[in-house]
Amino acid sequence: MRVLGVDPGLTRCGLGVIDARMNRKVSFIDVRVARSSAHLPPDQRLLIIANEIDKVIDSFSPDVMAVERVFAQDNVRSVMGTAQVAGIVLLAAARRGIPIEMHTPSEVKASVTGSGRADKKQIQQMVKRILSLDEVPQPADAADALAIAICQAWRGGPASLTAQPDRYQHGGAGLLPPTEGAGLTAAQKIWAKAERKTRSRTGAKIFR
Amino acid sequence: MRVLGVDPGLTRCGLGVIDARMNRKVSFIDVRVARSSAHLPPDQRLLIIANEIDKVIDSFSPDVMAVERVFAQDNVRSVMGTAQVAGIVLLAAARRGIPIEMHTPSEVKASVTGSGRADKKQIQQMVKRILSLDEVPQPADAADALAIAICQAWRGGPASLTAQPDRYQHGGAGLLPPTEGAGLTAAQKIWAKAERKTRSRTGAKIFR
Repeated sequence: MRVLGVDPGLTRCGLGVIDARMNRKVSFIDVRVARSSAHLPPDQRLLIIANEIDKVIDSFSPDVMAVERVFAQDNVRSVMGTAQVAGIVLLAAARRGIPIEMHTPSEVKASVTGSGRADKKQIQQMVKRILSLDEVPQPADAADALAIAICQAWRGGPASLTAQPDRYQHGGAGLLPPTEGAGLTAAQKIWAKAERKTRSRTGAKIFR
Repeated sequence: MRVLGVDPGLTRCGLGVIDARMNRKVSFIDVRVARSSAHLPPDQRLLIIANEIDKVIDSFSPDVMAVERVFAQDNVRSVMGTAQVAGIVLLAAARRGIPIEMHTPSEVKASVTGSGRADKKQIQQMVKRILSLDEVPQPADAADALAIAICQAWRGGPASLTAQPDRYQHGGAGLLPPTEGAGLTAAQKIWAKAERKTRSRTGAKIFR
């Protein structure tokens, strides 16, 4: 299952792509940071960021997307631009029929580091380790985007299924995707389908 | 010059269309309110609102757009959704090359009522009077969208030119659009072109 994680922002928008398998194995595919100059009017800045988002979606065909949830209490100066970018990310996903979820910063931190109060450095180090990267992704927005994608893979996929333990089977190192057929929720069907697609694309096998 | 004013919102998004001439004459063209249910996920809500915005732009071909500027200090519960909608409005304009400006609520109030602290009722009454409507536009979001369009027509058009009094001529009841050619700013060229287009569309004449 291919996941696109987005750390929304007008000045820097992180876009991280990973592949996720059901045994919690995640692998790095791509990361980039879309940028727009603060000297441009807001509509032109959004257009630049939106074009970059479209390019990443078209290039990597994510099965699912995730974007960080923005709070009005955060940095008041930049929060409205950040929310505007989150809006265009949500819309880009909806227009293509790609499921998208939002995760709070503390959910992302907890997923990746085990602590909802981890700092930037801890997140960067864990992202490097989890994805077996040679270096820490720079700038912080790049690492954050990958962390959001990892959070989606671990929480949004298997995590959301653990609420219904009778719907799936445990198998060795991790969870197995739900089998298709009656009794699956819409989200589970999407997941099962995405998982099959990923298996056929990567050649990876999941033993039952 | 045709103006689309947008009062952004996820639950109700006001979309008001007017025609504006340089003598401050404005006339009503259309008003509607796009709605999305709070029971839907945010990406689906944005898609519904975005489709309505696209429909209005395609139907009325505005020369210029305006959207209310959202502040993080406003209603914290709804402000992020409102900012997301503002983002998709700005992007919709940028994608089509339609100039778009943002106006604060007090700028809109001051334009339409003369007071930056007017209440909803005063705005609705003034919108009704200015556009010679038989009834007050309902709900408030509809009146607000028309007020934003009027604000854009009066501030964004002629108002922005009064800063350069040598660039245009006074003529009777109001301002005349800038003549084309060298010496005009990009915004003035857009305005002059839009003005010609409106004249040819409505058959209205502006005497020099």
